[in-house]
Amino acid sequence: MTGRILVVDDVATNRIVMKVKLAAACYAVDQADCGTAALIAARANPPDLILLDVVMPDMSGLEVCRKLKADPETADIPVILITALADRESKMAGLEAGADDFLTKPVDEVTLLARVRSLLRARETARELKHRGDPALGFAEAAAGFSAKEKPGRIALIAPGPKGAVLWKTALDDRVGGEVSILPRDAALSSFGVDDADAPDVFVIAADLSHRNEGLRLLSDLRSRPATRHAATVMILPGGDSERAAIALDLGAHDILYDPFDPQELAIRIRAQLGHKRQADRLRASLQVGLEMAVTDSLTGLHNRRYGLFELDRMLARQGQRVGVMLLDIDHFKQVNDTHGHSVGDKVLNLVARRLRAQLRGGDLLARIGGEEFLVALPECDRATALDCAERLRAAVADQPFAIGGGVPPLSVTLSVGIALAGTDTDETAQSLIDRADAALYGAKAHGRDQVTLSTLPAA
Amino acid sequence: MTGRILVVDDVATNRIVMKVKLAAACYAVDQADCGTAALIAARANPPDLILLDVVMPDMSGLEVCRKLKADPETADIPVILITALADRESKMAGLEAGADDFLTKPVDEVTLLARVRSLLRARETARELKHRGDPALGFAEAAAGFSAKEKPGRIALIAPGPKGAVLWKTALDDRVGGEVSILPRDAALSSFGVDDADAPDVFVIAADLSHRNEGLRLLSDLRSRPATRHAATVMILPGGDSERAAIALDLGAHDILYDPFDPQELAIRIRAQLGHKRQADRLRASLQVGLEMAVTDSLTGLHNRRYGLFELDRMLARQGQRVGVMLLDIDHFKQVNDTHGHSVGDKVLNLVARRLRAQLRGGDLLARIGGEEFLVALPECDRATALDCAERLRAAVADQPFAIGGGVPPLSVTLSVGIALAGTDTDETAQSLIDRADAALYGAKAHGRDQVTLSTLPAA
Repeated sequence: MTGRILVVDDVATNRIVMKVKLAAACYAVDQADCGTAALIAARANPPDLILLDVVMPDMSGLEVCRKLKADPETADIPVILITALADRESKMAGLEAGADDFLTKPVDEVTLLARVRSLLRARETARELKHRGDPALGFAEAAAGFSAKEKPGRIALIAPGPKGAVLWKTALDDRVGGEVSILPRDAALSSFGVDDADAPDVFVIAADLSHRNEGLRLLSDLRSRPATRHAATVMILPGGDSERAAIALDLGAHDILYDPFDPQELAIRIRAQLGHKRQADRLRASLQVGLEMAVTDSLTGLHNRRYGLFELDRMLARQGQRVGVMLLDIDHFKQVNDTHGHSVGDKVLNLVARRLRAQLRGGDLLARIGGEEFLVALPECDRATALDCAERLRAAVADQPFAIGGGVPPLSVTLSVGIALAGTDTDETAQSLIDRADAALYGAKAHGRDQVTLSTLPAA
Repeated sequence: MTGRILVVDDVATNRIVMKVKLAAACYAVDQADCGTAALIAARANPPDLILLDVVMPDMSGLEVCRKLKADPETADIPVILITALADRESKMAGLEAGADDFLTKPVDEVTLLARVRSLLRARETARELKHRGDPALGFAEAAAGFSAKEKPGRIALIAPGPKGAVLWKTALDDRVGGEVSILPRDAALSSFGVDDADAPDVFVIAADLSHRNEGLRLLSDLRSRPATRHAATVMILPGGDSERAAIALDLGAHDILYDPFDPQELAIRIRAQLGHKRQADRLRASLQVGLEMAVTDSLTGLHNRRYGLFELDRMLARQGQRVGVMLLDIDHFKQVNDTHGHSVGDKVLNLVARRLRAQLRGGDLLARIGGEEFLVALPECDRATALDCAERLRAAVADQPFAIGGGVPPLSVTLSVGIALAGTDTDETAQSLIDRADAALYGAKAHGRDQVTLSTLPAA
């Protein structure tokens, strides 16, 4: 299945000419002969892109575009408006209506196809991100510290000389609703770090800087550096240089504009890119939060059982025989729940988790793997280290009662701990280690709780 | 912070010449004057890329490369081997040792920088994917049906004419360890669907097809189509056309080779790309599984509480006032656990979930939001529909005892259901709807259980 493009024009000849061009480039073409038919077709069987004539008898292309962008079902479909004569006002109106570009008839084939490729590529990237990030979006919004929405956009201008740059900046400053700054090429490449919050969201770059094509090369360069790889780029080309415009789009420019440009038009295009960039940033953040939730126990914030077992496997594969595993179980935990209620029980679990974590190092693994059961795994560990660590963990919980607050008296809580050490020449798996630790834990429980027992099976 | 490149050469002048070139392109340069120093530097402070001289007194560049690739800490760093004269054998040996490319002195600056940009870009993409997908890798491996590992790679050749294509195929067939097929350009663009398992992993494309540069344009085209956007591409250019080679890399080609090529060399380069592609596919798959786990209740496979509440919010935002919500709670569930044990209780939860799901439509929401509590939300729902659906759900559980197996007698289970309908003009939130449904559920419990109660507050 190839890309599908909806061609909307009331003149049949125009549609056919366009269809021939697009079919030669291996796109499937749907047709609509008026605005109403276009809206119906776009909803019924959403195309990957729409080429939309501006002047139609029943409804102007601008009106169609506005309706497409207002409908969540069709809002994401890229739209290129096509018109016989593009006066400034209808061009601005078209871009404001949400069109991604505006081409005049007769349409230059190379430019058209490069633009189509560029928009389809951006759409696929966005779609993939959305497909993944969307289900987790609620988490990201709930996640603290996530405030990309409120930050103003950062726009960096990279012009051939300081004079041109100042002209650009003056033209944009009040129009674009973000922080506009002038940046030398070198600074764009070298002054931002990984995950740098100050890195620009949108670069406006002249195709030719000190050297011809230096701006085009800069495009690829920015995409190869961590701080700028997700930035949007608008390339400014000498008037009429449609060949290099096509190359700029294929090199990954998100939008292009010919010099001398209309500042208003550039501002609108930058705003559109800022919007796309933010949406993508948001989805990337939610993806991250969603993935963290998949490996986290929501009550204590520790790793969950699934991830704990996976990490233990990985530690065994990496460290071989020197891994120590312990299972820690809170003694008589059911009584806490029965006496004080579940919310007090949850608090105790949380406070125990915090005390355990405080006793462990960065490379140690700590996970909650059952209601009141924790897993600890220590890399590079011998018998003495394991016993010492287990005793510290036991004491950290037992030595001081837990202050719960809310009228509940301080609660004394104890742990039983079972330890198993990976044998030197056995084919130890995570499961067999845990089984042995579990048996040792059972021993600790049987001998009166609040104590540490070491599995007597294969010793280190 | 800019990209950091480690230059390894025993001749100081060579290092300095290289450093000047790289610094002009805004890279930070580290230096090492022998193989041993290179290995230490790469481990101590891993650079983003290594330029490695082949002939050094203490250790050959090939040896250094092999050691870098064998060490998990440094294996992902791209390596470009640089040598005064490249005999075929040492070139092959270098690529087999894991080098990403092999350049001869004097190094052409344009080619070098384009190659560096391309490798850094690929590394950043891989790193981002790895950062996200890696923690979830265990899930993907556990996920059923994931067997990309065993599938042979699919390599598609797009050559100027049928004769050339056959020559390529003959040269590669036994060398590359995958399925090699000849593909006309149009078929590459139009014959594969989204997520098509038959889509090629690697494309080998001539820069010029029927028209000059048609292969270069095809590169961008493939990246804009869903089925081929993640494929690797190797571009074949006329001998010595280093300018277009640089453009090909900037356009996203993963590797380049000049015609006439050594079939053995092409085969090695294709195998390397197959390896990268598979690693990326694997990480993308694990990402997907990880995210699904973040929104899934692991016991029943239904949506979990977090996702259920998020989806309900979204349904309210979309559907406005016509949403019906119900809370369903299994009656006396504690008795099941106390009498038959937790594993039987878990089985009952699973079977109840299955019966509920069987009664609902695709657009309805079903989530397990507590131990024995389920949430159902119906879009486009009125009072009659909600009551009817709730009654069906209640009956589906109550009408037939659950066959547990394992010697446990069939268990009769009932549900109590509370319904709330989003009012016509209220500012209903997910929480307020759930609170009202909860109050209604409480009523159903109080009036004897196994029944449906509708909240009497704001009616639809």
